[in-house]
Amino acid sequence: MHIDIITVVPELLQSPLSHSILQRAQDKGLLSVQVHDLRPYGIGKHHSTDDYQFGGGAGMVMRCEPLATLIDELREKRNYDEVIYVTPDGERYTQRRANRLSLCNDLLVICGHYKGIDERIREEYVTLEISIGDYVLSGGELAAAVLVDSIGRLLPGVIGDETSALTDTFQDDLLAPPVYTRPAEWRGREVPAILRSGNTPAIEDWRQEAAEKRTRERRPDLLGD
Amino acid sequence: MHIDIITVVPELLQSPLSHSILQRAQDKGLLSVQVHDLRPYGIGKHHSTDDYQFGGGAGMVMRCEPLATLIDELREKRNYDEVIYVTPDGERYTQRRANRLSLCNDLLVICGHYKGIDERIREEYVTLEISIGDYVLSGGELAAAVLVDSIGRLLPGVIGDETSALTDTFQDDLLAPPVYTRPAEWRGREVPAILRSGNTPAIEDWRQEAAEKRTRERRPDLLGD
Repeated sequence: MHIDIITVVPELLQSPLSHSILQRAQDKGLLSVQVHDLRPYGIGKHHSTDDYQFGGGAGMVMRCEPLATLIDELREKRNYDEVIYVTPDGERYTQRRANRLSLCNDLLVICGHYKGIDERIREEYVTLEISIGDYVLSGGELAAAVLVDSIGRLLPGVIGDETSALTDTFQDDLLAPPVYTRPAEWRGREVPAILRSGNTPAIEDWRQEAAEKRTRERRPDLLGD
Repeated sequence: MHIDIITVVPELLQSPLSHSILQRAQDKGLLSVQVHDLRPYGIGKHHSTDDYQFGGGAGMVMRCEPLATLIDELREKRNYDEVIYVTPDGERYTQRRANRLSLCNDLLVICGHYKGIDERIREEYVTLEISIGDYVLSGGELAAAVLVDSIGRLLPGVIGDETSALTDTFQDDLLAPPVYTRPAEWRGREVPAILRSGNTPAIEDWRQEAAEKRTRERRPDLLGD
């Protein structure tokens, strides 16, 4: 899979993309991510990529032309499955969407900054608008990093033990059950005896019940009843 | 405000915290963020911070002792308003929670990795569990960066024009209206005439209606009716 990212702050994405699982995915050739700096495409001698908004009000808006020039250039090289704009008014991102996107070959992610991008770029190019949650960030870069991480770890071969991703929270619409490791007792708190019993079917039952209980208490909306 | 972050991948947080608005907030002395590497607190000659989970199954679990040692050390220096664990089974993060957290003085954020942290650390120390969305990441680091960014930009003096944050999506439970900048016509697409009219009350009305329309179409759940 290949992911292109357009941003005015490419430096911000440097370390999230070059460590941990994402680096491993790229080293193995399973994923390539390229960050494209929008600034050289800016207008005039100051390479301006944003301007005041029509109608007045605080906050700058990213201009059409620099984005269009860069997007056109990238689209000549690749046939994107989706041109994604990360924005708080987009579709709320879920594990289901991450699963679907992990099946794509080529993705383009546009990061907004300031008040966002000119609406006409959304109309002209964007095929999918994604919000990573109901809060506002100073730019789309962290949201893009979240997309790449959540998708990248689903690519076959990226996570060492593939069964791990399947037992994650959300893959079955349940929160994960509590997890414990050694020591069996710590500061007077004991690991539930069942988990130390070696009785695999009983452990599976306990985990299923604990997952359902936690979901019922914390996120009844996921159960849909 | 001061934020401490505990992680086994401190490198990952380097560039998100040292650019853009977060750097400005730190330069101005409005925010200090310190990333603490958990690895030196690991056990044995390999400084192990995780181990297999009780009950079997894929995925490692972060051990109690290294976390407890570091948390105890940090708590001697500061009286945290909240000890936050970022985890997909936590409370769903919202702008409302970001607003509330922006009023705190000292926060501690624990990043999980692999299958997460031993449940007993959650019981012993954690006062607030936050999920940035219904999807799984390879670790809590990007979630911690999202917290710091969304909180940091709300601190008075961080964003240049303070009215900007108040018109953001979610601050009034509405999505933001479309935004436009020059040129007035681009590829045959025109900016709505009203935004170029100079008639401020009419522009305000248009924006309110556009915000309500967008929210009704995309996120009727926010309207709560």
